Amino acid sequence: MTRSDPAAELTREVLDRVAATPDPRLRELLAAAVRHLHAFAREVGLTPDEWLAGVRFLTAVGHMSDERRQEFILLSDTLGMSSLVETIAHPAAGVATEATVLGPFYVPDAPWRAAGDSIAILDPDGVPALVRGRVRGPGGTGLAGAVLDVWQCASNGLYDVQDPAQPRGNMRGRFRADDAGRFTFRTSRPVSYTIPSDGPVGALLRASGRHPWRAAHIHVIVSADGHLPVTTHLFDAADSYLDSDAVFGVRDSLVKEFVTQPDGSTLVEHEFVLRVA
Amino acid sequence: MTRSDPAAELTREVLDRVAATPDPRLRELLAAAVRHLHAFAREVGLTPDEWLAGVRFLTAVGHMSDERRQEFILLSDTLGMSSLVETIAHPAAGVATEATVLGPFYVPDAPWRAAGDSIAILDPDGVPALVRGRVRGPGGTGLAGAVLDVWQCASNGLYDVQDPAQPRGNMRGRFRADDAGRFTFRTSRPVSYTIPSDGPVGALLRASGRHPWRAAHIHVIVSADGHLPVTTHLFDAADSYLDSDAVFGVRDSLVKEFVTQPDGSTLVEHEFVLRVA
Repeated sequence: MTRSDPAAELTREVLDRVAATPDPRLRELLAAAVRHLHAFAREVGLTPDEWLAGVRFLTAVGHMSDERRQEFILLSDTLGMSSLVETIAHPAAGVATEATVLGPFYVPDAPWRAAGDSIAILDPDGVPALVRGRVRGPGGTGLAGAVLDVWQCASNGLYDVQDPAQPRGNMRGRFRADDAGRFTFRTSRPVSYTIPSDGPVGALLRASGRHPWRAAHIHVIVSADGHLPVTTHLFDAADSYLDSDAVFGVRDSLVKEFVTQPDGSTLVEHEFVLRVA
Repeated sequence: MTRSDPAAELTREVLDRVAATPDPRLRELLAAAVRHLHAFAREVGLTPDEWLAGVRFLTAVGHMSDERRQEFILLSDTLGMSSLVETIAHPAAGVATEATVLGPFYVPDAPWRAAGDSIAILDPDGVPALVRGRVRGPGGTGLAGAVLDVWQCASNGLYDVQDPAQPRGNMRGRFRADDAGRFTFRTSRPVSYTIPSDGPVGALLRASGRHPWRAAHIHVIVSADGHLPVTTHLFDAADSYLDSDAVFGVRDSLVKEFVTQPDGSTLVEHEFVLRVA
């Protein structure tokens, strides 16, 4: 048997094997993964030493991951994969609010809080911020009873789940909009913070000449009956890392001014627009 | 800022960031990895749930890996990546012996043994096999003092490092060819065996309708002064898994007849051809 291109023949052999996968979607995913993985190796001429370095890197990423730390999500985040998957799942549709990454610090079932309450239960160094606005549908109608599920790190750059000094539920809360879709809550003005950089992903960032900083933001998942929920951020327009967010989460439409008030606190206003389900 | 294709713009943003990597080879590898990873996600329309399943799968592969078990190498093997990297590193050059995968069971510094000795120190169920032949250069000259570093599983399908009942060094040995490049050693006729399939890679094989069997083979690394070493196998032509080897290691040129002798033992002859360094 003559073989003009043994590497190409090998890829075809693997694709033939994968083609027997019973589940059609898994079959499609595996075939595409094999094609792209092999194309990568052939394009760069991946050497055995580089392959072994890759195996060791992925193993270290796995060993760094547990219930409290997900280094593979960090890897995905810093390679822009997480943001890409969000973008594919939620293409910007006209006026609707853009989605961005969920991140690893979301905790379901945040405490319900009353309109105007603060999520900053313990954040002594925070600059107070009032966040207010409206949730509406594409046609402009306010969405009565829309829910904002909000979370954020404290002013020390740590989320409650990372910081034993914070009570659980600190810097988190769920708020229900009024009959006109209007909402108001208080928090601290968000700060820039670093993603965990003491593991293999941090080492890769350093080797790439990249920093581990995320642009300051408030996380929010906005939902309302009959509409598609959106997982998004509000970014502080004054932040230094908007152009180099370590996880590629910034969307221009999500960057807002935090306007300083006479008493030193800040005010940010935003309208969330949900698509009809 | 208008964006006709936010996903494509995101990929460009990640590539711009990676372009600052100081080391040129790491820069090339990262850029290619990002392009192929993003192209995969866009091509299949990877959903957030599928992305999370991928994160969990890779985490499980990492958690399964330790000093004795390398599940990422198994993953690479079963996706044909290991075989591809070997093929890229050692393109078949005319008459030279084809390379194939090293596999996870190689142990350096195997015991030196005398010509004609057996590596089967403990393998009561093995069918004896005599392996003999020659190591030569591309021009036909025998390579004096060429070294064969040989390893194989016992007839229970386990390598010594997997099996506490086998003495270390069982089914392993280094042999030096004579002044004409001729070699002779004894072993057991190789058997088919399964790669470890109790982990996430085994689960993926089952989901793909694939079996975990490797075609029966003897591993050998052949080296000689002034020539490029080759990491290869000798496959048994009578094996049932030659067309479906779980790790895509079979090369037609490496499949040999194990000829049964009057006393029930077997004989296989092979010539290894090394390229000039």
